[in-house]
Formats: sequence, structure tokens, C-alpha cells
Amino acid sequence: MIQKQAQKQVKVGLLGLGTVGGGVYKTLLKNRDTILTRTGCTVEVVNVLVRDRGKERGFAIDPSVLTLEPQELLSDEQIDIYIEVIGGLHPAKEIIEQALNSKRHVITANKELMAKHGAELLRLAHQNGVHLLFEASVAGGIPVIHMLQGYLTANRVHEISGILNGTSNYILTEMSKTGRSFPEVLSEAQSLGYAEADPTSDVEGFDAAYKLAILTNLAYDTCVDVAQIDRQGISEISGHDLKLAEQLGYTVKLIGHAHEQDGALRLSVRPSLLAGSHPLARVDDVFNAVTLRADVVGDLTLIGRGAGEFPTASAVIEDLTTLLTQGENIRRPNWDRVQTAASHAEPKVGNFYLSCTGCPTQTDSIGQAIQAGITTLGGILADYQSIETTERLHQAWLLGGVTEEQVNALIENVAQIAPEPPITLLLRVEGEISTGVKWETEASGLEKNPRYA
Amino acid sequence: MIQKQAQKQVKVGLLGLGTVGGGVYKTLLKNRDTILTRTGCTVEVVNVLVRDRGKERGFAIDPSVLTLEPQELLSDEQIDIYIEVIGGLHPAKEIIEQALNSKRHVITANKELMAKHGAELLRLAHQNGVHLLFEASVAGGIPVIHMLQGYLTANRVHEISGILNGTSNYILTEMSKTGRSFPEVLSEAQSLGYAEADPTSDVEGFDAAYKLAILTNLAYDTCVDVAQIDRQGISEISGHDLKLAEQLGYTVKLIGHAHEQDGALRLSVRPSLLAGSHPLARVDDVFNAVTLRADVVGDLTLIGRGAGEFPTASAVIEDLTTLLTQGENIRRPNWDRVQTAASHAEPKVGNFYLSCTGCPTQTDSIGQAIQAGITTLGGILADYQSIETTERLHQAWLLGGVTEEQVNALIENVAQIAPEPPITLLLRVEGEISTGVKWETEASGLEKNPRYA
Repeated sequence: MIQKQAQKQVKVGLLGLGTVGGGVYKTLLKNRDTILTRTGCTVEVVNVLVRDRGKERGFAIDPSVLTLEPQELLSDEQIDIYIEVIGGLHPAKEIIEQALNSKRHVITANKELMAKHGAELLRLAHQNGVHLLFEASVAGGIPVIHMLQGYLTANRVHEISGILNGTSNYILTEMSKTGRSFPEVLSEAQSLGYAEADPTSDVEGFDAAYKLAILTNLAYDTCVDVAQIDRQGISEISGHDLKLAEQLGYTVKLIGHAHEQDGALRLSVRPSLLAGSHPLARVDDVFNAVTLRADVVGDLTLIGRGAGEFPTASAVIEDLTTLLTQGENIRRPNWDRVQTAASHAEPKVGNFYLSCTGCPTQTDSIGQAIQAGITTLGGILADYQSIETTERLHQAWLLGGVTEEQVNALIENVAQIAPEPPITLLLRVEGEISTGVKWETEASGLEKNPRYA
Repeated sequence: MIQKQAQKQVKVGLLGLGTVGGGVYKTLLKNRDTILTRTGCTVEVVNVLVRDRGKERGFAIDPSVLTLEPQELLSDEQIDIYIEVIGGLHPAKEIIEQALNSKRHVITANKELMAKHGAELLRLAHQNGVHLLFEASVAGGIPVIHMLQGYLTANRVHEISGILNGTSNYILTEMSKTGRSFPEVLSEAQSLGYAEADPTSDVEGFDAAYKLAILTNLAYDTCVDVAQIDRQGISEISGHDLKLAEQLGYTVKLIGHAHEQDGALRLSVRPSLLAGSHPLARVDDVFNAVTLRADVVGDLTLIGRGAGEFPTASAVIEDLTTLLTQGENIRRPNWDRVQTAASHAEPKVGNFYLSCTGCPTQTDSIGQAIQAGITTLGGILADYQSIETTERLHQAWLLGGVTEEQVNALIENVAQIAPEPPITLLLRVEGEISTGVKWETEASGLEKNPRYA
């Protein structure tokens, strides 16, 4: 092989050799020539932090590069770049701080750390004249951080919508396809390794909220408080809700959403109804996707694998090649402008899906009470669907132009008149509801079901 | 506004002030502060080539910057960067050559020029130590060129699929939604300004072939001959074909496709059947989309507006800010490796959609002949659908594991036995046909229609 230019030797310290770390190690070896041709650098992993030296890894690695002691890596003077794929807040934060303070670049896949302490770590990198890159922290192999940090320069992004958690997307897709319940599919996902033993972070929206915070910070040059994000998980969604949503013409996805309204940022992670034409409606299984709405280019949607050994390794290694080729020209994010807590909540007026499950005779009267309540609120009843089984009646209303508080008050009223409170669920609808008619004037939604004609 | 660094003055010469040129001019003014903050440069358009000085443009522009003479712009020593949005081969090529030879950077939106003469123009830019950037030449605002040239460094791309022409996608979408014919929808698209007076380049796949050639050259560091791309337009597709495809579970899209097989590149632009789960199946109207399949990251799909004033202007201006921020670090494409002509054709063995329209009694026997022919070939008959009207019978077969030549020979045989040759159409099916059964052993596809049970 003829070298066009003098090879530069780059030495990497790898913190963690789990799924992602293994993928990084294998890919750096396999695509060594491609990286050399395109960057002029040979990249060598010289030191790897592991928990267990003797673990069977399914690939060959020189045992002399493995170490159990973080300090051994951190004091290794030959290392140019650290790659952190341990995860969690501690000791990852302290390790990264020490690496940055020793004036070495750091690449991390750690979403929780970047969402909670990104601003201070980026400041530390800047003070030390090195870079902290984190493409792998959001949406695996999808280069959405690069889009926001490295590409969209003349564009101002004013809205972000994304499917940011592969586990919950897999569960919703499976529930929708097979009609099975949330606990059933979760349990299967756990046995397949798609969900962790403690699935809280994935299914309750914490993981998606970390990622949404990172994207929002980049798009708006700010720092949002993750704890203030309006967050709702998927654990209360039943198979009947997915069926009812489908009958109404929608898909249910766990959507992270950020936009600016009246000068305030509004962020939420909530299961939402998407119309079939929505660019994220057909993103199924473990796939992730992000739509960026920018002032010049309009909507840009990126779809890809949001997790897994190689997609995440790809993001880590593309950060590495960016460091090797762009170096000092990499734009430094500035997350120092703190957002006030109040602005993190979604605006409450909007379109909603309300469902109610109970025994037919009871929910029938409850249903009438709900519809009467909507009339009183002056909201729009856009559509109605129901599924009746021998013992249960599942009903769903598509409501427009109401506040979430109004609908919640209505649910409480209904619960008080019912001898046995029915199971209710309230979800947001993304975008406009196209078939909306004023409930007061025309009840076209109801005509579909003679029950309330 | 506090300036963090000394402002650099950048002077731009704009060649063309049509739709895209106007969008570039307006956006450079409107997003001036954003660009300054992020690049440290103030960008000023100092000279604009127009055909008519007095034309009403719907926005304010100092008439003293307008000029009718290319040479006046080209000899303007103060210009740092030229933006070419005239289109067509000549005089765009000569103007760009002169600009590069005078050691000024050039940004172009010219797909035909880049597809046909990109290799020599890129060489010229390299020789002069300047850059020739062309993000706007493919898929409007979608940064797919940036993905290939600027981002995917550690990845090797081994397959490209894309909806690269907005006009034909709009026509197919409208035909599919409304059931109207190709000439009807084309005529409407022309009156709406979505299609040109001479629509050949859009509807016969030339435009998509230019774009596919550019993407392929970037992904494979090569230079393909556009004339050798296997190309089929959409003008022969009827509303009945879209309906039959839908009944079979597919959407029809004009797909540009490139992949490497046995060391040879295979390129095609053809209307193709996509299963509903295909990432490009739901990309409708004037939207464009590209799926890149790479060795580490897997499939990455980008969706956005493929044309129009601002999406295309966005691509031009992001090239400009890339020049301002990355400068010498921009990776230079190398298109000097010429591809041999033979390798541009798609492999002929695959899955196909064959339809046949004629009077019911006649096509009935023709249909039986076609199915008998498939049996003889040893192919797979995966599915069959038909639409019968009073005077016509429209039939469609989904065939697997046959060569295009075999199916074409079969069509010719049938034409010879028919007193009045029926209208036939042969389209490719993208990906696997999932429900395929061996026609010889099980005719499950046929059970759906008692005609051939």
C-alpha cells in the first residue's frame, strides 16, 4: 500500500470493553486501512480498562493491554484520546474530568452524564484546549449530534422530534403487531437482551429525556434541567389502546419533543399519537429517528439503528476520525445558558387521546359523561372508536383544542360518579387533527358508533 | 452584539438569481448574524450575474450589484467564493473552470455538470488549491453529500438507494392517491410549477441518474458513466399498476440504486416496488430520501425536501459555512478511477412485478400463458392480483428468482399468440419477496383469485 502522506500514530485508551467497547475495538482493527487512507493516521488501542481480565469476549485481544485500574490508564502518557464506554455517572465523570485535565481528548457514549453534567465537562474541555465528543450518546449510529454541532451552521433549528429509545419502540411495535400486553412483551424483550433487568430508565422515558436534553442543548446553545422535562412512560399503555389508536388512523410512539414557544423552550417525552403520514410513524422495532425542523432547510429526518454494538461503535469512531481530520476546527458547544425550570413543560392546550376501559354497562354511562364534559369545555371531538369484548368496553376519544388540566378534571369527575373507577389513559396527539369538527355543532365522529348517535 | 473574534469579510459572486439564487441571496441576508456567530465571518454578495436587470424579483436587491456579463464577475478580484446556480452544461462549465483557475472556491448546485464533468472539475480545483463543493446538486436540502464526503470516514458505504427526483415522486404519489393517469397528473404538476414544460429529464429518470452518479462517485471514489446507468422512467406506469401494487402490499417509487457485486458497481434508476416496511416506501410528494448502507453503522436514511428555493439554498449556504470553518480540512473527492461500462447495469436475476392489461376474455388466456411460462422457467410466483372493469382486465404477477430477459422473452411469446397484443409492464421489486412460494409445489398466491385456482 502506497502512503500518500506520513502516517501519524494515534494512541487510544479504551475505558470499558462491553458491547460497545468490543465493537469499537473490533472496528478499529477491521477498518484500519480505510481510516488510514482517509485520515492519514494509524489508530492503536494501547490500554483497555476492564472489570475482569479473564472474561471470554469472543474476539482476540492482547491480554497485556487490559488493565483493572482506571489510574493506570489515566497516567499512561502515550495516550492521545480516551474513549469512555463504561456508562453511569460515577466513576465515569471523575475519569473524564481527570482525562480532560491531563489535556487529552475524550469521546464518550454516556448520555446520562452528558445530560446531567455536560455543561461543566464541555467547559473543562475548553479550558484544557481539548475536545469532548459525544455522538454515540444519542440515537446510536444516527449522526444527529454531528448534524446539530457540525453541519447545520447557517440554519437555526426550532423544533426537534424523535424516537430516542429503542427498547420502548421495540415494545410498542411488538404490542401493536401481536396484540400482546406490556408486561408480556417487556418480559420477552428482557429475555432477548433488548431490555435490562431494571427497565425503568427505558420504559419510563428517563433515557429518552437524557437524549432529548443533549439535542436541545446543542440546538439552542443552552442547558436544560433533565428533571424538569415533562415525562410519561409507556408502561400504562394497553394493547387495546394501540388498537384503538390504529382504528383512529394513528400509531403510538414514545416521542421526545422540544420546541421554542413565546421565547421559552418546551420539552416533553411522552407516548404520542402520530398520523400515518408523520415521518416517524413507520419507524419500528429498535430503530431510532429524529426530525429536525430548521428555518432554511425545513424538516430533515434521520433514521437508523439507535443502539447495538456496531451502530454505537460507528458513532464513537466517526467522532475519532472527526478529531483526527478537523481537530481545532470542531465547533465547541456552549451550554452555559441555563434554562429556567418553568419553561421545560409542554404547553397544555393541544390535541389529546383519551381512553376508558370498564364493564360495558358502567363505561357506557361514563362515556356519555365524558362526551358531555367535552361539550361543556367547548373542545373539539374529532373522532371516537370503541372495542367491545364480552366483559369489557374499551372506548377512545380524539379531542382537540382542550387543555390537559381540563381533561384531567373531567377524568376525576367521572371517577367520582362511577361506582368502580374505570381505567383511563390520556395521551398527546402530535400535530393537527385533520378531521376535527366542533362537538357542539356536528357530531360526525360519533356517527361512526350508533351508541352515541 | 459582542464579537468574540475579529470578523473576517467574505465576498461572494452569485451566478444566477432564479429560484435557488434568490433563496441564497435572501438567506444570506436574513441569517447573517447566525452565520457571523458560528463562523466569525460576515458574508457579502458583491456581484450577481442575471439575464435581465429590470426583472421584478419580489425582494429588494441593490441594482448596482447586478451584472449581465459573466466576465465582469469573473474578473472581479475582490470575490473569494463563487456560487453557481445557473444550471445546464454551458456556459456553467466554462465559468466554473475560469473561476477555479483564478484560484477562487466554487459552490455549485449543478447536478448534470457534476455527473458528467465532475472528475475533471474536481481535479482542476485540486490543482488550483481551492475547493469545488456541490451539496445542492443532490437531494436539495438533505445533506447526503456531506454524509459521504464529510462524515462517514471510518465506514465504507456498500449500497445506496434513493428517491432522488421530487417531480416524479410527486406524480407517483398523486396518481396513487387519486387514481388519475400519468398524463393528467403531469399536466397538473406542470401548471403548478412542479414539472417543467419539457418533463423528460425528471420523468424519464435522467435527473435521478445524474444524482445517483454523483453519490456513487463519492461513496466508491470512482467515476461512473451516466449514459451507462440502467434507466427506466415512470411515463408507462398506469393508475391500475399503482392499485395492483398496493393490493400486493407494495408502493411504487422511482428508485436510484447502486451497489457493489462481485467487485463491479451496478447502478439503476427504475420505478420499483417497495414493501410497506421499506424506509423509502412512505416518502411521498416532493420529498426526497436516501438510504446509505454502510459496513459499521448499518442503514442510515435521510429524508427531506429535495428541491425548492430554501432547501436548496440551505445546501448551498451550508457548503459556504463549511468552507469558512473547515477550509483546508475538507476531504477532497477523488473521482479519477473510471468504471468500466459493463458494470453499470443491474444484475438481471431478481424479483419482478409483471402486469398485463387487455380485454377480459383475451387477457384471461394470456394470463394463463404467462403463468404457464413462469412454471417452465422454474421461477417463484409469489402473488397474483387483478382488477376487472367492464371492458378491461388488469392483472399483476409478483415473480421471484427469474431473470429480466426470461420475463421479457415470455412477454414476447405471449404477444405472438395474442390477436391484439396486451399492454404489459415489467418493474423491479426492491428487496426480498417475503411470501414467496415455489410455483411448482404450492400456488398459494393463486388461491387469492379463483380464476387460476
